[in-house]
Amino acid sequence: MHLPKNVTIIEVGPRDGLQNEAKFIETPVKIQFIEKLKEAGIKEMELTAFVSPKWVPQMKDADDIIASNSGTSRNIVLTPNEKGVERALEAGCKSIAFFVGVSDTFNLKNINKSTKESMEAILPMIKKLKDQDLFIRACISTAFYCPYEGKMKETDVLDLCGQFSKAGVDDLSVADTIGLANPLEAYSLFSKLKASFSETLLTAHFHDTRGMALANIFAALQAGIDRFDSSAGGLGGCPFAPGSSGNIATEDVVFMLEQMNISTGIDLSKLFEAIELVEISLSKPILSKQYSLLSKRLGQPRQA
Amino acid sequence: MHLPKNVTIIEVGPRDGLQNEAKFIETPVKIQFIEKLKEAGIKEMELTAFVSPKWVPQMKDADDIIASNSGTSRNIVLTPNEKGVERALEAGCKSIAFFVGVSDTFNLKNINKSTKESMEAILPMIKKLKDQDLFIRACISTAFYCPYEGKMKETDVLDLCGQFSKAGVDDLSVADTIGLANPLEAYSLFSKLKASFSETLLTAHFHDTRGMALANIFAALQAGIDRFDSSAGGLGGCPFAPGSSGNIATEDVVFMLEQMNISTGIDLSKLFEAIELVEISLSKPILSKQYSLLSKRLGQPRQA
Repeated sequence: MHLPKNVTIIEVGPRDGLQNEAKFIETPVKIQFIEKLKEAGIKEMELTAFVSPKWVPQMKDADDIIASNSGTSRNIVLTPNEKGVERALEAGCKSIAFFVGVSDTFNLKNINKSTKESMEAILPMIKKLKDQDLFIRACISTAFYCPYEGKMKETDVLDLCGQFSKAGVDDLSVADTIGLANPLEAYSLFSKLKASFSETLLTAHFHDTRGMALANIFAALQAGIDRFDSSAGGLGGCPFAPGSSGNIATEDVVFMLEQMNISTGIDLSKLFEAIELVEISLSKPILSKQYSLLSKRLGQPRQA
Repeated sequence: MHLPKNVTIIEVGPRDGLQNEAKFIETPVKIQFIEKLKEAGIKEMELTAFVSPKWVPQMKDADDIIASNSGTSRNIVLTPNEKGVERALEAGCKSIAFFVGVSDTFNLKNINKSTKESMEAILPMIKKLKDQDLFIRACISTAFYCPYEGKMKETDVLDLCGQFSKAGVDDLSVADTIGLANPLEAYSLFSKLKASFSETLLTAHFHDTRGMALANIFAALQAGIDRFDSSAGGLGGCPFAPGSSGNIATEDVVFMLEQMNISTGIDLSKLFEAIELVEISLSKPILSKQYSLLSKRLGQPRQA
């Protein structure tokens, strides 16, 4: 069985994770959270989003987050539209993420545009940003299942990724938004993506809604994937997709990979320090497997 | 990727699961639980254990459980020693399970015998029972890791399984008792077991302590394994192994397998009825992924 020797974890907790938390986390805590994640060895991260503060209040401090941020990591910001891109550029961002759903219905419910309309808006922005040599990440949601339309076609995912690839996108983050993909589907789709887009970074984004995320990661590794999105503490999910709670927790991914002698470069004990900060601020227990076990080891049994 | 088309689930909830619950479940509830599990399509089950009621009070009604039990399923009872075997035979049991740890230290802490001493006691009993044409299952615990000794040697597991196989054992249930095995280890060990014991039923028993159980099942499927132990509602674990909480839940295994078009013959909605009975009796929420999602679907959000 041939698996990659090294894996890159793209930490999405500060953006995808916190975005789904109703309680506002104070900006200095977020900044410290991000710093500690970098100390733990995270080299790529979704930091924040330039979205309407009315729509996502948690992200209203995007400018402050970017201003406070330093270091050599790849700091990605999410932008839903031209206004977001402008704000990101003004803030000096060098890595920008766009998102689109494979499912039309999901896309319409999410941002009131069909998938085609979304792409017509996004692709010209990407071309402009690539001229300025920015790093562009495309987040492909509902790549396996849509909560409204059911099973998605692989050909539609490949077609969408092809459009992004042609526009010069650097990273394709392909997501099982509602956590319904099984390992055979993960292996199949990522094998085809790997074969079709050998020049583009390919990232798998799994949700653990039904407990299949680590199985899917193992399947994607077999398809040659060596980049995985995950969220410290398993923070977040997707507020627009019913039953989609639960990004896979970074610590659970890192633990499994390191046990398989696949290097992630991430220090779990430092990662736990980052998580603890957010746990205290959210005033609710973080229930990932590794973090719960840690608490047990420290003699503070956590209610499951 | 070649996976088995059909999988047999060996339900261990009534024995391995309930054994670890402090609150005594009334015998009629247990009987109804078992009946409902059979209605759901379970064909092989660990029903109860003929152990000292002082040691495991939950199993004090073993005789009543067996007496009330009917049907054509394979009804397995666990016996730790000669006295247990006698009681099982008197009760008319046709399928008997023995257990032994690969780790000496674990075995000593568990039943005050080294692995070798355990085998010296068990093997003659097995030979006698095989003469009477009983079905014999050997439960091999700590086959990957021991909480005291760490990583186990594959050769030791193969040797132990070889002794059982030579004695005529029908089923080898090989367990990751503390839920620390990773998918590469699962694939490696089960591939070797499959190659060495092609004439014996081989069952994988995974715990979900670190969230890796479904990934390990996916790996074991690739090694050709088509029998998996699991526990309805994820009941149980092992009281003698620190940090070993959490048998993988039958409903989570069934869901993943059926999503992969691997048939289990199990009806999830009937399985949920069985679980609900125990949940009510235990007065604590069952937190498996599928059962939690079901509750959400029914509009009764469950505290996680």
